[in-house]
Amino acid sequence: MEMVRVELGSRSYEILIEPGLMERIGSVTADRIPERRLFLITNPVVGDLYLEQVRQSLESAGFDVTHLLVPDGEPAKNLHTVENIYTYLIAQKADRRSTLAALGGGVTGDIVGFVAATFLRGVPYIQIPTTLLAQVDSSVGGKTGVNHSLGKNLIGAFYQPRLVCVDPNTLRTLSEREYRAGLFEVIKYGLICDEDFFAYLESHLDALKERNPADLVRVIHRCCEIKAEVIAQDEREGGLRQILNFGHTIGHALEAATDYERFKHGEAVAYGMLAAARLSREAAGLDESALNRIRNITFHLGPLPSAADISFGDLLEAMQRDKKRRDDQLVFVLLPSIGQTKILSGFSEELLTRVWLQTIADMEQG
Amino acid sequence: MEMVRVELGSRSYEILIEPGLMERIGSVTADRIPERRLFLITNPVVGDLYLEQVRQSLESAGFDVTHLLVPDGEPAKNLHTVENIYTYLIAQKADRRSTLAALGGGVTGDIVGFVAATFLRGVPYIQIPTTLLAQVDSSVGGKTGVNHSLGKNLIGAFYQPRLVCVDPNTLRTLSEREYRAGLFEVIKYGLICDEDFFAYLESHLDALKERNPADLVRVIHRCCEIKAEVIAQDEREGGLRQILNFGHTIGHALEAATDYERFKHGEAVAYGMLAAARLSREAAGLDESALNRIRNITFHLGPLPSAADISFGDLLEAMQRDKKRRDDQLVFVLLPSIGQTKILSGFSEELLTRVWLQTIADMEQG
Repeated sequence: MEMVRVELGSRSYEILIEPGLMERIGSVTADRIPERRLFLITNPVVGDLYLEQVRQSLESAGFDVTHLLVPDGEPAKNLHTVENIYTYLIAQKADRRSTLAALGGGVTGDIVGFVAATFLRGVPYIQIPTTLLAQVDSSVGGKTGVNHSLGKNLIGAFYQPRLVCVDPNTLRTLSEREYRAGLFEVIKYGLICDEDFFAYLESHLDALKERNPADLVRVIHRCCEIKAEVIAQDEREGGLRQILNFGHTIGHALEAATDYERFKHGEAVAYGMLAAARLSREAAGLDESALNRIRNITFHLGPLPSAADISFGDLLEAMQRDKKRRDDQLVFVLLPSIGQTKILSGFSEELLTRVWLQTIADMEQG
Repeated sequence: MEMVRVELGSRSYEILIEPGLMERIGSVTADRIPERRLFLITNPVVGDLYLEQVRQSLESAGFDVTHLLVPDGEPAKNLHTVENIYTYLIAQKADRRSTLAALGGGVTGDIVGFVAATFLRGVPYIQIPTTLLAQVDSSVGGKTGVNHSLGKNLIGAFYQPRLVCVDPNTLRTLSEREYRAGLFEVIKYGLICDEDFFAYLESHLDALKERNPADLVRVIHRCCEIKAEVIAQDEREGGLRQILNFGHTIGHALEAATDYERFKHGEAVAYGMLAAARLSREAAGLDESALNRIRNITFHLGPLPSAADISFGDLLEAMQRDKKRRDDQLVFVLLPSIGQTKILSGFSEELLTRVWLQTIADMEQG
């Protein structure tokens, strides 16, 4: 079994990665969680696929399991869903020693993590991510939260899980679109931290697109390793952790401007990364050949939903409401080269507009 | 100026106590908060009394102040009010470097603290408590949160303020009832931690009832000192901090069973302390004379709203939904003697009913 440890003192925890881990989730959880009351929270689609298996494994290991289905998708990631979960937990007499388990993708994990952070001022929780995006990104690092109607993830808390269980076999059941959207977040790690890993991705793209298990384990392991290193140094995004937001300044705005309905998160980030790469070419010294490598890998993983009808004015407004603003300046993570980052702000609206129009034109042709 | 430091490593902060501190709040805040954008959140009653004074002091010290009024009272302490504050902050383009300031009593402080804990995954906040309850208890220690329709403070987070500013002069404008309700929480500190302080309270009760400034400073200082010591040892209520819940097992249930409308928090805690003292007499070795001292000081500060019409069955149900439950057992903080605590559970319903009926009978006569 592959294991990545997130070092955060008394809040340290492990990410376990193994094909077939779903079937042994009870024993690995029992080794790490002392209490035996557990609320398994999932969505209807993932529940149909994995609920019985996970429940049986947990019960065999001695857990008293109660399950709850919550709706999936960004539009359901709001305080209303959170409130319904509180009500359910209270009705079931959950207490501070009850553990929550999030079984599903990023939306389920973010919601359940936020409930864990705020129910009875904090209860333990574990993550069992079933999408690529959640396995390489959102289930690790304790960012929890929900959307406000005016912006994504504006409500939330930093609250670490006690354990993350990744079974790459669950990726077999992902839709092609969902899976590819997750690959964009994988690429992000190469771009911000590790040129060798980026080169590996370029050369293994076909194997990855076919969901080759050995490649998947390697890729998920490396992404989690990078994320764990960053978080150990900067849990609350005071500095270094910001690099994980590469592509997210515009990515989040695209999602908000389309009411979280048109784009998968990874797809919006793909636009954001391409725009940030173009901005890096203009303002951070990224060379033309590196920009082309980023364009090529993006096109290779496409197609993406069109963004051609979204005005840059709408995006700008959404960006100005985002967390990544500093005073009145938009903050961008840029790439001086592949594997290196630089955080910059103070760009003119004219430059940003031009970069965005180039990005759209590129993507429509790509 | 009196000062109590809450030692929590990188999250340490100071409680400043001084009559007239309201007028110099700007300078003491500016010394401790680097950023200059500040959202001052208060309720209409406290706003009428202190908003202009506090705002002017903050602006003179260079803060860019925006203010917001929120409703007061336990019925308003809910997610709906929290959501309105989020919406306002987003509309005003608050960012992670904006500071929130809670000006008001416990309800305002709890709400604003929870917003600070969960807006953009956490922004800094300061407490400017204006009620006795808030000055000696709720503004210190980072317990933030709101009520769920099924129970008090079931939604919340541990999230420490950056500074607590206590001006005992604000107590002059408190209603007699509100003020006395706060004195019950003062008494609690003597009972759980410091017999000498309890004896001091017994002998200075008339001066305290008259809000003598010198006595008030001494009393607030000692309460904050006790609370700071407890929190430094157990921030998240894993052990020692539970002693601060003396009187709260039944107190919270009384508030919930009457929809947070009949009792001030301190009044409900007064019932809870008297019941816990009676239970301590039965089950923790508290002697008769100590019980009588507790009864006498409670009667002396009364009268309290009647609780005679509330069935113990309703209280029991409310207690079973509370955070202070452990598995299926109700947990009580008891007193082997004044100044000493012991945490016990496993009492029979019959014993609890008897203790409660004695408490009511006592109070109706007292």
